[in-house]
Amino acid sequence: MCLPGIFIVTLLTLSIPAVHGGKVLVYPQDGSHWINMKVIIEALHSRGHSVSVVRPSDSWYIKETSPHYSSITIDIPGGADEEFFSSFVSRQIQIQREGKSAWTRFSLDMELKDRFSEMHRRVCEMVIQMLENKQLMQSIRETKYDLVLTDPANGGGVVLAHYLNVPLVFNVRWTIHGEAHFAIAPSPLSYVPFPVAELTDNMSFFQRVRNFLVYVIRQHLYKQTVGPHYSALVSRYFGPEVDYFSLFQAADLWLMRVDFVFEFPRPTMPNVIYMGGFQCKPAKALPQDLEEFVHSSGEHGVIIMSLGTLVAQLPRDLTDELAAAFAQLPQKVIWRHKGDRPTTLGNNTLLVDWMPQNDLLGHPKTRLFVAHGGTNGVQEAIYHGVPIVGLPLIFDQPDNLHKMKARGAAKILDIFTISRDIFLQALQEVLNEPSYRMNMQRLSRLHRDVPMEPLDTALFWIEFVMRHKGAAHLRTESYRMPWYSYHSVDVMVFLLAVVLLIMLTTVAIIRCLCFRMCSRQKIKHE
Amino acid sequence: MCLPGIFIVTLLTLSIPAVHGGKVLVYPQDGSHWINMKVIIEALHSRGHSVSVVRPSDSWYIKETSPHYSSITIDIPGGADEEFFSSFVSRQIQIQREGKSAWTRFSLDMELKDRFSEMHRRVCEMVIQMLENKQLMQSIRETKYDLVLTDPANGGGVVLAHYLNVPLVFNVRWTIHGEAHFAIAPSPLSYVPFPVAELTDNMSFFQRVRNFLVYVIRQHLYKQTVGPHYSALVSRYFGPEVDYFSLFQAADLWLMRVDFVFEFPRPTMPNVIYMGGFQCKPAKALPQDLEEFVHSSGEHGVIIMSLGTLVAQLPRDLTDELAAAFAQLPQKVIWRHKGDRPTTLGNNTLLVDWMPQNDLLGHPKTRLFVAHGGTNGVQEAIYHGVPIVGLPLIFDQPDNLHKMKARGAAKILDIFTISRDIFLQALQEVLNEPSYRMNMQRLSRLHRDVPMEPLDTALFWIEFVMRHKGAAHLRTESYRMPWYSYHSVDVMVFLLAVVLLIMLTTVAIIRCLCFRMCSRQKIKHE
Repeated sequence: MCLPGIFIVTLLTLSIPAVHGGKVLVYPQDGSHWINMKVIIEALHSRGHSVSVVRPSDSWYIKETSPHYSSITIDIPGGADEEFFSSFVSRQIQIQREGKSAWTRFSLDMELKDRFSEMHRRVCEMVIQMLENKQLMQSIRETKYDLVLTDPANGGGVVLAHYLNVPLVFNVRWTIHGEAHFAIAPSPLSYVPFPVAELTDNMSFFQRVRNFLVYVIRQHLYKQTVGPHYSALVSRYFGPEVDYFSLFQAADLWLMRVDFVFEFPRPTMPNVIYMGGFQCKPAKALPQDLEEFVHSSGEHGVIIMSLGTLVAQLPRDLTDELAAAFAQLPQKVIWRHKGDRPTTLGNNTLLVDWMPQNDLLGHPKTRLFVAHGGTNGVQEAIYHGVPIVGLPLIFDQPDNLHKMKARGAAKILDIFTISRDIFLQALQEVLNEPSYRMNMQRLSRLHRDVPMEPLDTALFWIEFVMRHKGAAHLRTESYRMPWYSYHSVDVMVFLLAVVLLIMLTTVAIIRCLCFRMCSRQKIKHE
Repeated sequence: MCLPGIFIVTLLTLSIPAVHGGKVLVYPQDGSHWINMKVIIEALHSRGHSVSVVRPSDSWYIKETSPHYSSITIDIPGGADEEFFSSFVSRQIQIQREGKSAWTRFSLDMELKDRFSEMHRRVCEMVIQMLENKQLMQSIRETKYDLVLTDPANGGGVVLAHYLNVPLVFNVRWTIHGEAHFAIAPSPLSYVPFPVAELTDNMSFFQRVRNFLVYVIRQHLYKQTVGPHYSALVSRYFGPEVDYFSLFQAADLWLMRVDFVFEFPRPTMPNVIYMGGFQCKPAKALPQDLEEFVHSSGEHGVIIMSLGTLVAQLPRDLTDELAAAFAQLPQKVIWRHKGDRPTTLGNNTLLVDWMPQNDLLGHPKTRLFVAHGGTNGVQEAIYHGVPIVGLPLIFDQPDNLHKMKARGAAKILDIFTISRDIFLQALQEVLNEPSYRMNMQRLSRLHRDVPMEPLDTALFWIEFVMRHKGAAHLRTESYRMPWYSYHSVDVMVFLLAVVLLIMLTTVAIIRCLCFRMCSRQKIKHE
């Protein structure tokens, strides 16, 4: 439940500069999602639009001051999701590698679920703080925003847009109910794999059963985790008859952070615009020392390894196994690594705190990407055509990698049970078997062969919504229907009833006629 | 049934020039559909591709010699559909205006159905003639076409592409089973109006019942009319286990001749590319005499009227009514008219044999378009933002106009019962009520606001298929599933069975336990 008035609102900053062009109010999702949103914000800014970003005062990623946007900062306690997720992943690896009980793993899952629930409770609090702050809301109204741009992984921007009656544009892959397509497009579970189920669009009967079950269970879980918070919020401001999820489904545009090189083909809708890989760009030259290291790899080339921003530190025994495998290769290795130096580290391996990942992936000497399977990294690997050895950890990472594996462009390993031999074998397989590289380069060619760059496409459509004050003509309102109407169950029942009625009436008439004829014959005989 | 060998094949022309660029084999649909195909062929030619067009020797529209394509002419008797349809429409108008019996109207409908069946039988014959002509097929194989481009209103190109194992691209609005989306995209009948049902995406319960019934009946009718011909053809060349319609569903790309300004929003698929209005272009200057006539209209502007290519001649009493209404208006009227001069013709009305319709619609003085509602005319009216008074005759024309009416951009009249007063009133309403023009101009703005011109989009994707030898990654193969798998009926039945089994087992165990406990108590008591 989101109760009003119990949190202190401190409006740290509210400065909306008078820039020519459109005015965009951004309600982002913190964490790695912000990386994507920032790309769009910077592009909007470079096209002369003015952007305001709503952020919690203790945001992990979203800086308060930026040359590209002004901030609307809400002071709200209890954030620091980064620390939680980072330590969560470390504990997850530790527990799995130590082979602790199923109960321990289950309680870890429950902890994650509670954290998500808490995250959404906090979003609802933030929204209430905003809406109850009359001065802030007046200022927002007076700014006359052209649209709200939000990542519907949280519902803050959705509720805000509806409250302000302003067009709503999504930068999206997930809504609060899971994969975004499932929220608006027909998604036959017979050939549309529910993400996280690690399936393809070509399923056996029992895979279809699994897909069905995973979908049903997950949907229930999402509703249970996030539903109460948003129901209370929406009910408070728009009345109890408004379904919170229908506000998501009413978005004007869905700028989807995938394309059909990454995603399996499936039904879509006219207001879904694909901008997968919009964050990818040609590689720039490397810093001199890195270039020298890469160049020294000669004909063997380099391997780059990064497990993303969430892994603070891998367990020592694990890093020793990975380093030992790397040491046996003729390639050079650049490893984004935190924590102690592995004891088994070879001379060919360079540990770095941070790496220019895109520039390295685009370097002609890069042969292989050892990755956790975050969407951004996988998209960059596709863009540059570099095959993957995947070490998935959490969230959508196993599923993202599974998509690449299905295309023959990646090999997936279980990080929890990995040994130096298994790792080495996988590295050698992907390095030496040409099909991995050929398949990934084929995906790269398909991905890049578009009439318009994905980021330009996204900008075009955001500005389309500005020009036309929405995109109602691309949006169905079918989500307003009850399920039995949507699926024509009522129509079929009605038609069946009519057919039955006609049949019964016919039978009744025939029986009646027969009865009369029999009666007459009886009378005659009598 | 399409039997081989009973028709004489005379290959009139077969010349495939060695042009640099791609090689495209076109199997068009004759009649007004050819107008659309020609636009794409000319554009392909201008981009350096070489195009061969398959045509029957007695084609109404498709000329044998052209600077833009070479012809593969098949000599096959019994065409001349143009005459049939033209006289059919005239008879239809006559019969409806004379209020003849329902039986007469029904037999006219049956005549139309038979003609369609005959048209498809002829297509199958043409394909058999081609496939049986070894010299022709060898020549076609040697040409190594990059793709077959076809209008799937007939199945000739579909079968040919499958036989040659060449990628298949559609220039499409209708397949042989009706509206094209229904062949590949999920189409919930609750909010997707089946074309010809004259409904919108916002239906009452009884409209939904109607939509459902129209869909079911039409699907049955299509299958009955075209099925036997294509089944026999496909069975003959690919075996009896191949479903003819699955060959349509396997097309690489569907270049759809609509957009979501014309069409209501509905589910779509990744391999559907919208190129609605691709044939529209900015108006050129009018011939001097026409420009003078238009200019003389002063502030009142002009009305243009055309009922398309199919109407040879309207009944005399009808043209008199229309002319009398026009005569009462201060506007000038340009009327594309065949047949006798109406007796009631006013001085303000110019009868013409042919008109530069696009240039007239794009003229700033044009106020109103009186049209039969063919897709091309409606798209041109949208492009130039000219509201419509519709006099629909046949096929999809009532439905096309209904779409415009639903957007407040057209008024529809019944040509069969029209009088001068009704017509005048409608003309005056659309001329004087600003909403019609404003709504059509809004549609025009939306239609034109695209990141890439529709024709360029179509060309990009045709060349995409050339570059990548198909577009398999955009195409689902879900159509291969039996319906019960597609809709997960088998999965649901299985899960239900499992649940029932568990419940029954539980009950059985409980009963067994109870029975034992009771038995023991009994023994104790005894």
